[in-house]
Amino acid sequence: MSFVPSFSDIESAVDIIKDVVIETPLVESAELNARMGGRILLKAENLQRTGSFKFRGAYYRLALMTAAERAAGVVACSSGNHAQGVAAAAAILGIPAVIVMPADAPRIKIDNTRAYGAEVVTFDRLTENREEIAGRIAAERGSLFVPPYDDPHVIVGQGTAGLELMRQAAAQNASPDSILVCCSGGGLAAGTALAAQGIDPDVSIYVAEPQGFDDTGRSLRAGERLRNPALGGSICDALMAPMPGAVTFPINRHVIAGGVAVSDDEVRTAMRYAFGTLKLVLEPGGAAAFAAVLAGRVETRDRTIGVVLSGGNVDPGLYAAILAGM
Amino acid sequence: MSFVPSFSDIESAVDIIKDVVIETPLVESAELNARMGGRILLKAENLQRTGSFKFRGAYYRLALMTAAERAAGVVACSSGNHAQGVAAAAAILGIPAVIVMPADAPRIKIDNTRAYGAEVVTFDRLTENREEIAGRIAAERGSLFVPPYDDPHVIVGQGTAGLELMRQAAAQNASPDSILVCCSGGGLAAGTALAAQGIDPDVSIYVAEPQGFDDTGRSLRAGERLRNPALGGSICDALMAPMPGAVTFPINRHVIAGGVAVSDDEVRTAMRYAFGTLKLVLEPGGAAAFAAVLAGRVETRDRTIGVVLSGGNVDPGLYAAILAGM
Repeated sequence: MSFVPSFSDIESAVDIIKDVVIETPLVESAELNARMGGRILLKAENLQRTGSFKFRGAYYRLALMTAAERAAGVVACSSGNHAQGVAAAAAILGIPAVIVMPADAPRIKIDNTRAYGAEVVTFDRLTENREEIAGRIAAERGSLFVPPYDDPHVIVGQGTAGLELMRQAAAQNASPDSILVCCSGGGLAAGTALAAQGIDPDVSIYVAEPQGFDDTGRSLRAGERLRNPALGGSICDALMAPMPGAVTFPINRHVIAGGVAVSDDEVRTAMRYAFGTLKLVLEPGGAAAFAAVLAGRVETRDRTIGVVLSGGNVDPGLYAAILAGM
Repeated sequence: MSFVPSFSDIESAVDIIKDVVIETPLVESAELNARMGGRILLKAENLQRTGSFKFRGAYYRLALMTAAERAAGVVACSSGNHAQGVAAAAAILGIPAVIVMPADAPRIKIDNTRAYGAEVVTFDRLTENREEIAGRIAAERGSLFVPPYDDPHVIVGQGTAGLELMRQAAAQNASPDSILVCCSGGGLAAGTALAAQGIDPDVSIYVAEPQGFDDTGRSLRAGERLRNPALGGSICDALMAPMPGAVTFPINRHVIAGGVAVSDDEVRTAMRYAFGTLKLVLEPGGAAAFAAVLAGRVETRDRTIGVVLSGGNVDPGLYAAILAGM
């Protein structure tokens, strides 16, 4: 890694992205607060461009590219949200983009990535290695590979969500005791922690992961990077990175207070609550951190808890099936 | 009517409601703007307490009640969103509430109204008169009847949505050429117009109504209050008032530029777009004004258009059925 991302990097990034990245609202629900016995502040990144926070890191990374780098294009691999983020950022900046996506990614994510003008290359998630495919394309074309999380610039970009959360909370006379973010490779977690603790060193950051994909939580407890036993099987298609990142984990082991694992059913319940009460569309992975709160896996009574609602890109058929459980 | 509501009433109302009513975000989507060729500013009142703008008028009206009035309670009749607004406001202010609701109102709206602690009395929308039932209850108990729109205080309360929209637009360096609001009895339309034109006399306010329930649009063209031919049959359960209000229409005929009618299919398309791109849950009536924009029924090219997304209380079964059309 070329540098260790810092709070001041994130502060500077806000100025670079501010005309393109949406300052998403920090939503608060009186009903949710009453239910949880505290103040729950929801950072609605599902309302971000491309429907997830991933646009932040992608746009920030691409905005730093030189003219010569831009001409040679970018390559990324992603199950969907990073794909859309890179594709949309590339389109805005006039950069050719190739995205390597699993063939079983949600249709809405593949379609949207193509709609942003990117070239999509699919692969079999169980038999092929996406990094190898992306690396080969990058080498052939001289393109920049844009990692989904293992890149200090990407971490800085994702951190702008946490910086906004803290500033918006302060404007609402709230000071979070802790913040929950979902975690796949750990980029949002690292960036959010650096941003939030740069403002208030006492705020605790927790990661929420799907049960069976709680590699970051287990790795934090073990003090070393541990791999998930399976590559697939969670409803949270966005949260199935095989293990903590080589760049993110050395940061996260210092700044993350711990991890909680949520079940698919807890995620579905959170998605239904977001539909029925918050009126927000969340995808499974985007509801994971909120699910941890709603299921009572973190103390909320008399506390102020920030939660990143990280994405809303869910296929309508799956969404309808989940609503059928109401 | 006891007084004619004015811009300054709405300005004052903001101070009275500000600790309880949510200042909902003004959402903007780059994809929507690109599609429509202009700036579309979406006032997300589906994120309001109780899931619709109706909480504004209800809470403001009840907040003005004296201690003696409060002890005798309130009565309201509503297909659902005004019901929830009054029930929630009454609960917050410790006022007993009876709500008269059609037996065929969406289950979510009836359930939520009861959950706020109100007593619900149902009636048959085709054979019984809800005003008579509510009037009888109010007379028996000495309670205050809270009309859904034909009340200057309620109009003032709804107008706070329009005032916020204009102030938020200014903060985003935008000046709406026109604003679209849905219309049933006309309270939101009247309040929004008074608020917006108090800030910018040149902004045009248009109402969106379901086809077959475009009584306000037709009445504006005729110069007199005209009745809808049917009492039911639109997907927009919230927008089926039989005719323009006796209090609202004399205001609206001076402040509303015109009306557009939208089909059920256009409303469904708008709900799907809100799901897939905006990540917002809208109920049919809450999507009517947006449907008019998305269907191209108003000029958007090189214009700045404010749109009130007025509510998000939709039964999950209906929502799933609408998503099935994607």
